[in-house]
Amino acid sequence: MHDDSEVAVLRLGHRPGRDDRMTTHVGLTARALGADRVLFPDNAGQSLETVADITDRFGGPFDAELTDSPNAIIRNWEGEVVHLTMYGERVETVENEIRAAHLENGTPLLVVVGSEKVSFDVYEAADWNVGVTNQPHSEVAGLAVFLDRLFEGREFDREWENADRRIIPQETGKHVESVEE
Amino acid sequence: MHDDSEVAVLRLGHRPGRDDRMTTHVGLTARALGADRVLFPDNAGQSLETVADITDRFGGPFDAELTDSPNAIIRNWEGEVVHLTMYGERVETVENEIRAAHLENGTPLLVVVGSEKVSFDVYEAADWNVGVTNQPHSEVAGLAVFLDRLFEGREFDREWENADRRIIPQETGKHVESVEE
Repeated sequence: MHDDSEVAVLRLGHRPGRDDRMTTHVGLTARALGADRVLFPDNAGQSLETVADITDRFGGPFDAELTDSPNAIIRNWEGEVVHLTMYGERVETVENEIRAAHLENGTPLLVVVGSEKVSFDVYEAADWNVGVTNQPHSEVAGLAVFLDRLFEGREFDREWENADRRIIPQETGKHVESVEE
Repeated sequence: MHDDSEVAVLRLGHRPGRDDRMTTHVGLTARALGADRVLFPDNAGQSLETVADITDRFGGPFDAELTDSPNAIIRNWEGEVVHLTMYGERVETVENEIRAAHLENGTPLLVVVGSEKVSFDVYEAADWNVGVTNQPHSEVAGLAVFLDRLFEGREFDREWENADRRIIPQETGKHVESVEE
């Protein structure tokens, strides 16, 4: 985010039709909550389009990309890999260590978000397997809480470039402004 | 949560088929991140079953219910109503006020999570319209961050009753224990 080193989110696994909205929400959550980039499996072109469209309208910088080899992305990542899984260590235990690696040492972070079933290789390749609770819930919820804790709320101060609209916070109702650049 | 006054989550709107997983994830996120109860529209019976099944296996207390009149739930709520919407006030601005109302004054809280389109009545009926960022992303992500901030991480210490299994956090791999009561 901003001047920090990169945070990228990798979505592992995608079943077209069934997973479209979840995968799209992973991408939109990554964007809204401070990540720099999302990588989708190459059969998730529809989610990519939605995320790119939101970025066009509401601003960036934020990149959405397809990859035909998610495992190679993990293997070749030059930085640290966090795999979000309900089987992992508690986020409240490891978040300081991860934050220090990322913010103080400037290590690029790859946050891996699985779908139904994740192969054991991913658990082994990750520098941290992290559970946002050890309860079954939602990969979107886990990603959101992880990013909010990683950035400690700084993601809310992000300024968006090249937006053509901006929402002005309201007590009641909706206020959308056109942005003149 | 625990000895606090109640936090219930109300899912507004549900299109069977299209919204099944999002609605289910709203329910599971509510449960995992410290709410006491979720209310679904009455056409979301499939999501209800999934949430009840997870509660049977991983523990409670957590209630999932159907309602045929979500608007009446909001209107008749004896407590405060928070409506999560990207058009609302910034969560970082209002969270202390909401937390104080809930924890210090013991006010039951209804957290309303919309789907595509929410009628203006809901904006007017809410005590707070709250945006977890003013960017489009995911109602599941918004709910997760809101609950984590409301409870300030205390939801992670929750102990689950009547579970028949428990996940033991691991650096690598999966460890599930049977619970003998």
